[in-house]
Amino acid sequence: MGLHEECGVFGIYDPAGGCAQTTYYGLYALQHRGQEACGIATINDREQSFYKDVGLVSEVFDKQTLQRLNGTMAVGHVRYATTGARERENAQPLTIKYVKGTLAVVHNGNLVGVDQLRQKFEYQGAIFHTTSDSELIAYAIAQARLRCASVEEAVCQAASKLRGAFSLLVMSPQKLIACRDPWGFRPLCMGRKGQAILFASESCAIEAVGGRVERELEPGEVVVVQDGRVQSIRDNCRGKSHMCIFEYIYFARPDSIIAGQSVHQARVNAGRLLARQNPVPADVVVGVPDSGLDAARGYALESGLPNVMGFVKNRYVGRTFITPDQQSREQAVRIKLSALRSEVEGKRVVMVDDSIVRGTTCSQIIALLREAGATEVHMRVSAPPFISPCYFGTDIPDKDRLIACHHSIDEIRDMTGADSLDFLSLDNLQKLAPNARCGFCEGCFTEHYPIPVDGSED
Amino acid sequence: MGLHEECGVFGIYDPAGGCAQTTYYGLYALQHRGQEACGIATINDREQSFYKDVGLVSEVFDKQTLQRLNGTMAVGHVRYATTGARERENAQPLTIKYVKGTLAVVHNGNLVGVDQLRQKFEYQGAIFHTTSDSELIAYAIAQARLRCASVEEAVCQAASKLRGAFSLLVMSPQKLIACRDPWGFRPLCMGRKGQAILFASESCAIEAVGGRVERELEPGEVVVVQDGRVQSIRDNCRGKSHMCIFEYIYFARPDSIIAGQSVHQARVNAGRLLARQNPVPADVVVGVPDSGLDAARGYALESGLPNVMGFVKNRYVGRTFITPDQQSREQAVRIKLSALRSEVEGKRVVMVDDSIVRGTTCSQIIALLREAGATEVHMRVSAPPFISPCYFGTDIPDKDRLIACHHSIDEIRDMTGADSLDFLSLDNLQKLAPNARCGFCEGCFTEHYPIPVDGSED
Amino acid sequence: MGLHEECGVFGIYDPAGGCAQTTYYGLYALQHRGQEACGIATINDREQSFYKDVGLVSEVFDKQTLQRLNGTMAVGHVRYATTGARERENAQPLTIKYVKGTLAVVHNGNLVGVDQLRQKFEYQGAIFHTTSDSELIAYAIAQARLRCASVEEAVCQAASKLRGAFSLLVMSPQKLIACRDPWGFRPLCMGRKGQAILFASESCAIEAVGGRVERELEPGEVVVVQDGRVQSIRDNCRGKSHMCIFEYIYFARPDSIIAGQSVHQARVNAGRLLARQNPVPADVVVGVPDSGLDAARGYALESGLPNVMGFVKNRYVGRTFITPDQQSREQAVRIKLSALRSEVEGKRVVMVDDSIVRGTTCSQIIALLREAGATEVHMRVSAPPFISPCYFGTDIPDKDRLIACHHSIDEIRDMTGADSLDFLSLDNLQKLAPNARCGFCEGCFTEHYPIPVDGSED
Amino acid sequence: MGLHEECGVFGIYDPAGGCAQTTYYGLYALQHRGQEACGIATINDREQSFYKDVGLVSEVFDKQTLQRLNGTMAVGHVRYATTGARERENAQPLTIKYVKGTLAVVHNGNLVGVDQLRQKFEYQGAIFHTTSDSELIAYAIAQARLRCASVEEAVCQAASKLRGAFSLLVMSPQKLIACRDPWGFRPLCMGRKGQAILFASESCAIEAVGGRVERELEPGEVVVVQDGRVQSIRDNCRGKSHMCIFEYIYFARPDSIIAGQSVHQARVNAGRLLARQNPVPADVVVGVPDSGLDAARGYALESGLPNVMGFVKNRYVGRTFITPDQQSREQAVRIKLSALRSEVEGKRVVMVDDSIVRGTTCSQIIALLREAGATEVHMRVSAPPFISPCYFGTDIPDKDRLIACHHSIDEIRDMTGADSLDFLSLDNLQKLAPNARCGFCEGCFTEHYPIPVDGSED
Repeated sequence: MGLHEECGVFGIYDPAGGCAQTTYYGLYALQHRGQEACGIATINDREQSFYKDVGLVSEVFDKQTLQRLNGTMAVGHVRYATTGARERENAQPLTIKYVKGTLAVVHNGNLVGVDQLRQKFEYQGAIFHTTSDSELIAYAIAQARLRCASVEEAVCQAASKLRGAFSLLVMSPQKLIACRDPWGFRPLCMGRKGQAILFASESCAIEAVGGRVERELEPGEVVVVQDGRVQSIRDNCRGKSHMCIFEYIYFARPDSIIAGQSVHQARVNAGRLLARQNPVPADVVVGVPDSGLDAARGYALESGLPNVMGFVKNRYVGRTFITPDQQSREQAVRIKLSALRSEVEGKRVVMVDDSIVRGTTCSQIIALLREAGATEVHMRVSAPPFISPCYFGTDIPDKDRLIACHHSIDEIRDMTGADSLDFLSLDNLQKLAPNARCGFCEGCFTEHYPIPVDGSED
Repeated sequence: MGLHEECGVFGIYDPAGGCAQTTYYGLYALQHRGQEACGIATINDREQSFYKDVGLVSEVFDKQTLQRLNGTMAVGHVRYATTGARERENAQPLTIKYVKGTLAVVHNGNLVGVDQLRQKFEYQGAIFHTTSDSELIAYAIAQARLRCASVEEAVCQAASKLRGAFSLLVMSPQKLIACRDPWGFRPLCMGRKGQAILFASESCAIEAVGGRVERELEPGEVVVVQDGRVQSIRDNCRGKSHMCIFEYIYFARPDSIIAGQSVHQARVNAGRLLARQNPVPADVVVGVPDSGLDAARGYALESGLPNVMGFVKNRYVGRTFITPDQQSREQAVRIKLSALRSEVEGKRVVMVDDSIVRGTTCSQIIALLREAGATEVHMRVSAPPFISPCYFGTDIPDKDRLIACHHSIDEIRDMTGADSLDFLSLDNLQKLAPNARCGFCEGCFTEHYPIPVDGSED
Repeated sequence: MGLHEECGVFGIYDPAGGCAQTTYYGLYALQHRGQEACGIATINDREQSFYKDVGLVSEVFDKQTLQRLNGTMAVGHVRYATTGARERENAQPLTIKYVKGTLAVVHNGNLVGVDQLRQKFEYQGAIFHTTSDSELIAYAIAQARLRCASVEEAVCQAASKLRGAFSLLVMSPQKLIACRDPWGFRPLCMGRKGQAILFASESCAIEAVGGRVERELEPGEVVVVQDGRVQSIRDNCRGKSHMCIFEYIYFARPDSIIAGQSVHQARVNAGRLLARQNPVPADVVVGVPDSGLDAARGYALESGLPNVMGFVKNRYVGRTFITPDQQSREQAVRIKLSALRSEVEGKRVVMVDDSIVRGTTCSQIIALLREAGATEVHMRVSAPPFISPCYFGTDIPDKDRLIACHHSIDEIRDMTGADSLDFLSLDNLQKLAPNARCGFCEGCFTEHYPIPVDGSED
Repeated sequence: MGLHEECGVFGIYDPAGGCAQTTYYGLYALQHRGQEACGIATINDREQSFYKDVGLVSEVFDKQTLQRLNGTMAVGHVRYATTGARERENAQPLTIKYVKGTLAVVHNGNLVGVDQLRQKFEYQGAIFHTTSDSELIAYAIAQARLRCASVEEAVCQAASKLRGAFSLLVMSPQKLIACRDPWGFRPLCMGRKGQAILFASESCAIEAVGGRVERELEPGEVVVVQDGRVQSIRDNCRGKSHMCIFEYIYFARPDSIIAGQSVHQARVNAGRLLARQNPVPADVVVGVPDSGLDAARGYALESGLPNVMGFVKNRYVGRTFITPDQQSREQAVRIKLSALRSEVEGKRVVMVDDSIVRGTTCSQIIALLREAGATEVHMRVSAPPFISPCYFGTDIPDKDRLIACHHSIDEIRDMTGADSLDFLSLDNLQKLAPNARCGFCEGCFTEHYPIPVDGSED
């Protein structure tokens, strides 16, 4: 396994130019998918330029850099925060020179079987500069290109052999190519704005730059843009899709539409399902900001209880924030979150959040509510318990650190100090995205994955 | 007039040390009151140290700096964003040496009559390094100290002669002194955490560091902390108070309690009052994030309409974000805000925000709702129209740029594209903070100020 | 006593503008006088702007900053490296507002009796932001201005009351004023370039910007430039001058002319005098780069011995260079200096340097020569031994750390491992600058100062 | 052709650890060979770490980074200043993963025939991240490794097939390998310090870290260090060597010994040869700092004329220095260099420098001397005229911009304003390094290269 990562991609073809600027705003709209590093590569008159570094979109780019990058095609990437010495080196776009010129590659998702694949290339004399899957993908394309008549054919052929999650943009000096893995693990959509053609991990990015979402790529589909013409290649489209259901629960922005399903509505649905699943007498419903707010609203609507603002969240967190040290760790949560006494004092509170991973933060939040006068705290989680890691791009800790791998729900309830605790059931999980025109990957909740994952953990 | 500014102050006496660290978290909780610059000064064994710079709290300070600043007393400051070459020089704390040793001064608010005061000092040979009111205050204290037996007496005497808004912390090598102007324009409260004694602009900062709020300073009160003993001096307490009502409407964090009134509840009240004031047939109520959310909830509660999440706000704005240039300015708002089609499509929407200053942003937000399918947009503003500048620390543009100075409500409605528009009435303004044990300054809405303001505009 | 510091000043009036740019190059030529911090203040259409920070001239300023500072008058400053938390705050120009508008002050030198002076101001209610003498000078001018008809008169009157070393530039919205203390401790000269009028600590800076040196200011002289007219005020000119003789020995750049005497020639003279003073049989003469090179040349010329390049110096030292830690400290010198075996192997070497302060570096350099095969090392120092601190701006350690305060020359010879050791005699010190039209301050070598220094040591 | 570059390499095996620290000082001693970028890779317990960036050694590394890099083997690199967007990406060490684990590669020199080589790899499906020769070398090693029993054998085999200049260090998890091209274009030497084994481009770096130089690698030699054992492989040693003669004239530090010849002495020799070649009646000899100083000394010794310090050079140039713009370009040289009037006024001056490339700087320097009063200026150049580019790592402009390709010596004399001009003759070029145990490459002076260079110019 490579690094676990959740990322965002954006791409544009625009004969009017200014593509670096548009990509900047597109990436900014996708910043929630990755805050560690970001980068943009452009093509101007067939020449490739790029810039990438560690930091937020607003930190990495300045006006001069965007002007220098100006071009008529661009791909960009935001990267999830991980640790490691190679941070800067692992930033994307990956920009390479190969037999037919230059390529820029950005991708979201994780491959499986990368060790074997890497070894295969190494036994042909390959060298790797990074530990990222993107470099493997670039190799696969470069090698396929030796046997294929075009770069898009090479992308198709490479994609047909790779296993795992990849929503991919590839930019050659003349073509912008989008490609989604045959299982459809990660979202990737397409839009237009005037003459421009846009690709993005989520629909919100296309709308943020003033574009109109046209459609999602099908699982396995390859779309090629050249000189404004769009061509679709469906050789790798195989049928059943397995969209990561955690995109609905947590990753995606609520204003995105994935596979026809509003993310916001899916979260409201999860809350409604929780309310029906295990009703509890209470006075108010409170969401943990930001990811629990929508489900709390759904719980309130279904239960008829008032939905109050029980918490205020401090928005000014940055990458350089100094977290409290050991002795004051118990204070950590109150630096970022505070409970609103006027809303919860003397009340029986239903508190809704999107997940419990290790259980520590959860305990602290419940304690905040009790300090603010809540008489009862009933915790509701808008997803089932995590019982297995993700092999397709989500940063879920390994089983050792997953509380639900070692404790029953009753034990977790006691450990977190809740009066009652309920998770969304696996049955109800199926129902949260009724409008989605796709199947789901629920491996982190069920340990059943759409494709074999070797069991190998890096 | 000096610079208009809204700021936040924090101070601590803690014999156990670590005061720079606590102040860091206290300022972080007050970051909403100022994002331009910040600083901390400490006393360690009677020696003063300080560090300040342009930037957010999380950007300016690193671990080394906090460790170096360690001490048993500290004062800190966050500063509102203004422009100007002297940015770094105007950062606070102001640290000076005077006849009796060192002082560190932080303050929130604006004085009036500063030109005359400055001139008075200049005619005595004074030199000024900054254009800030804090330097005037420091001079006033230094001069008073020549005639007074103690620094707290000097603070009292200086405060009795200054006119305007000042919530002030002054730190000498042995004493931490808090002082509020006799009109009580700006909030300032006091708390404890074990042996530590804390001061902050808002109660949320005291709670964020794990402290317990004890009380607010009275208008005119001076509180002196020395070796853990607390003494109150009420020589300047004159009676009627004039708390800035815009603290309730916009500035303060919703989880703060000011003068006994929950800020969150005041905003909910404003929404309820709006609903009663001018009911309109509609399907949903939508708040403009973040400042309109509470009032929208109040409107919904009072009207019985459902309160939906109509907008998603991009949280990753930073000081270095590149704003769109002229030709794409109309897109600017959609980079930071997007409307949720699933919530507003086909609906008659009541949209609640906290203010209309120039009207441009407002028009763009209404347009977003219409694009997302809203059939009607009824704008409700949880404050009266601005008709006059603030002389006491709020950055309200001058009359030329205030839309309500030049247009009737009907005209504003048409200019912004709303189907109907209503502002909170002056009568209802009085009612939004029923629990507040104070009077208000409403000068920006009424042009009537608690003290003469010269008419001079900077 | 304030901080000990050696600094450089530059000033320009140029109706054609571009003064910040010229000052940048002028300060760059004076960088040897101070590498800690620097700054430039300008007047454009009577408006003052400034920028200053910690760092070298080439680090602190970029093109944007210089463009923003553009003006028709400017003063600049480079500051010597000292330690302390207030580094940035102590950077110059000091820019203030006083009764008659704005002033910018830059100065080189140290005052004596500053504690009393500071106290005098403090007893009038003054506050100080820095610990620098410049702020005292600014106060003195501001207070004198209350009684004087013009700013230049105020500068004169203030200067007549200050004691110590000050080569000063003061810039008001309309005038550029240069002022030298009545004892003439520090150099200050004046030049022209077309219509522009220039001031600088050393002549090399005027020539570096393409100007022509006109003359030096007399001790006590005040020169006022307004609208291109130059006026000299000599009210404070008192007669005997006391130029710091260490300017010739070490501080000044060899291409500068001070008081009519070439600095380079003075150093060559010192070498000649050393050769005559105490001849020793030897094979080669070697100078320690850079400050010993000129005197070594003089020694070689006088003795007839060949002057060889015995050392190579690494030029890439920067403020952020990591110095070797304790265990490898003995290696420290060889990182910056290496001996040239081909020049010294098997030779009896006369090694010339400009001073011995603590003796440690000196021992290491002598060891380098022996390792490279020198059979004898005869150390010659182109100055007398330091026996007393400087109160006028030179950073000489206090007596505790001056090796010559505690050891005889024979002892120092043994401690440093030299075969013989000689210092320039006090008699010969008088002869090194035969063309200089000034007297000297030799206090650090004789303990006799031109003015009383209180004995107080900071 | 790849990029033209002159660089420096340093490597160390030390079982006692601290290798990053030692490499830091080694690179610092080699900083004259490249100021654009630098980097260090280390092995600690078989794990590779690295850090590299644009900037000087003292700018790129801080204590934390060096501590984090700590290890028992290290390789480092300094890189020559070139322009281009991929600056940071082209920094070395190149760190890769290949079939047998990790490698770190640093190299000095340029390959020829890189286009064909790159193409060969690309036709096997290779992808390139950089445009540097180092990546080609890494590929060659990785591919050879598939057929070889050890990494050192792979380095040997790769080296036997590469053409051009490469002084190379390769670090695997267990071995440190040094390799020099069979022509011996670039220097590479080896030393010891206690148990540590050191490699460096120049001997000065080994001495700077307190080591003892043992010997130079032979052209074609591969030296392998593993667990403290040193093994030499001479399979590629072919006989005649072709050391770049410009290393003696300009590149190398004067205190380095290359092929048994002191660089300093070679430069003194060049000056002596110039004096004999074309004597001219004159009063003084002046070297242009820094590279002309040694040859000037030689000229003076041979001619009997006094060698005076005619120029002072400003040492504070940094990468961020703002060079004067067009209208003041003629002033550019005087910002960095000034002539010493006292040394040259009324004198006939022989001015010695190491090269004339385009002739513009040279004219300005001669003008400086004349302004300072020199009555005649006789220019002597310690190298023959450049008539052809270098294909082996020296950044010599192409023929269009080489003044000697388009003008006779008399014309150049007139263009630069010299009274007479002479270059070192090709015959004398042969004599400047009489102790060197090697042959030379003089291609830039003769257009005859040791190996075919395709004529292709990038």
